[in-house]
Amino acid sequence: MEKKTIGIVGGMGPLATVDLFRKIVVHTKAACDQDHLRILIENDPGIEDRTAALLWGGADPTPKLAAAARNLQRGGAELLVIPCNTAHCFFDAVQAAVDIPVLHMIRVTARALEARGVRKAGLLSTSGTVQTGIYQDVFSGPGIGLLTPGEEGQKDLMDAIYWIKAGKMDFDDTGVRRAADELMRQGAETLILGCTELPLMERIYDYPVTDPTLELALEAVRQAGGEVI
Amino acid sequence: MEKKTIGIVGGMGPLATVDLFRKIVVHTKAACDQDHLRILIENDPGIEDRTAALLWGGADPTPKLAAAARNLQRGGAELLVIPCNTAHCFFDAVQAAVDIPVLHMIRVTARALEARGVRKAGLLSTSGTVQTGIYQDVFSGPGIGLLTPGEEGQKDLMDAIYWIKAGKMDFDDTGVRRAADELMRQGAETLILGCTELPLMERIYDYPVTDPTLELALEAVRQAGGEVI
Repeated sequence: MEKKTIGIVGGMGPLATVDLFRKIVVHTKAACDQDHLRILIENDPGIEDRTAALLWGGADPTPKLAAAARNLQRGGAELLVIPCNTAHCFFDAVQAAVDIPVLHMIRVTARALEARGVRKAGLLSTSGTVQTGIYQDVFSGPGIGLLTPGEEGQKDLMDAIYWIKAGKMDFDDTGVRRAADELMRQGAETLILGCTELPLMERIYDYPVTDPTLELALEAVRQAGGEVI
Repeated sequence: MEKKTIGIVGGMGPLATVDLFRKIVVHTKAACDQDHLRILIENDPGIEDRTAALLWGGADPTPKLAAAARNLQRGGAELLVIPCNTAHCFFDAVQAAVDIPVLHMIRVTARALEARGVRKAGLLSTSGTVQTGIYQDVFSGPGIGLLTPGEEGQKDLMDAIYWIKAGKMDFDDTGVRRAADELMRQGAETLILGCTELPLMERIYDYPVTDPTLELALEAVRQAGGEVI
């Protein structure tokens, strides 16, 4: 199979983009540099806050998302990935901006959970992702039940995500743990790290988690014609 | 100061490119996504082996290096960095291919060591980097003495670098340690990790090392108008 160039629409946030890039590289089977996949990255942290746009009247991130996608296609990308869950609320506009396929992180994650026979999952994500119902919509297809935290837990989670974006990894995680414990008590078989900042939080791996960034990385390697390890 | 877009000519190897990207992001002072710098990455692992071209009659990497640099400029990059020491043997061709400045990792490292008052450094690098004398040329300016391993130590080091490129991080490091110990015994004040794969080797931090990838990341943040942390 001819190998394809992967384009990463990144910067949301930058460390989450580093995380996806690293996961693509380390999960590609390669004996030397030349066995690896070509990857183009547009890390534009100036793309407006997705949650703010969806819930609080913030500026629309769509023009910059579309511009980044087009820039990657011009540079030679043949398929695109977006390491930001909330940005998938603007997925159709990104796909419409280019002539190459854009992988959908949330659909990829749903397929992975379906294949593993998961029936009920907890969602840890931004308030924008929860309130737009994007995970609920996608997960209703394969009939996977989705649990979300209560109001207080969701607020604690959103605070934690902004702490991680600010590079303050030593924040007090009591609130996040309370939200996670709540979902586990309600019968979640796995907790979806439905915001690309959450896989960066070392302590979250105390729970049985599913990492959409990793699922997206594996699918990108496969779609680009690489061998997954 | 107006912020500039950084372009990374990467893929040599891909994990070293991840490493530079991560170091730029974590060393940029930022309270939210939007405070970060725009970074474009062309991770083209198909760029031919630099050491092979310099020493063993391998194919010339210059056309692909120049194409990557031009692609980044077209995408909006305003300054370029190359996270591969050996590729700096082809630096003039990369700089000639674009109208934007290319930071020179080895010159940046020399300035950093000069500022710290280092008089004698050991060089851990590929055989291509050693034999072309690129570090020796740059370091002779500020009069920093440069020690390199003997033939056997250099061969062990080259083997280790190819193991790291192949993702085999658990290789037997006896040879690398012997080379490092030899340089320390000869009076090296610091060991320069003069191949961008070497900072990925956890055990090398047992020695007092200087990491050119880190020095390049800090200089890139400064040149792009970011605040270094």
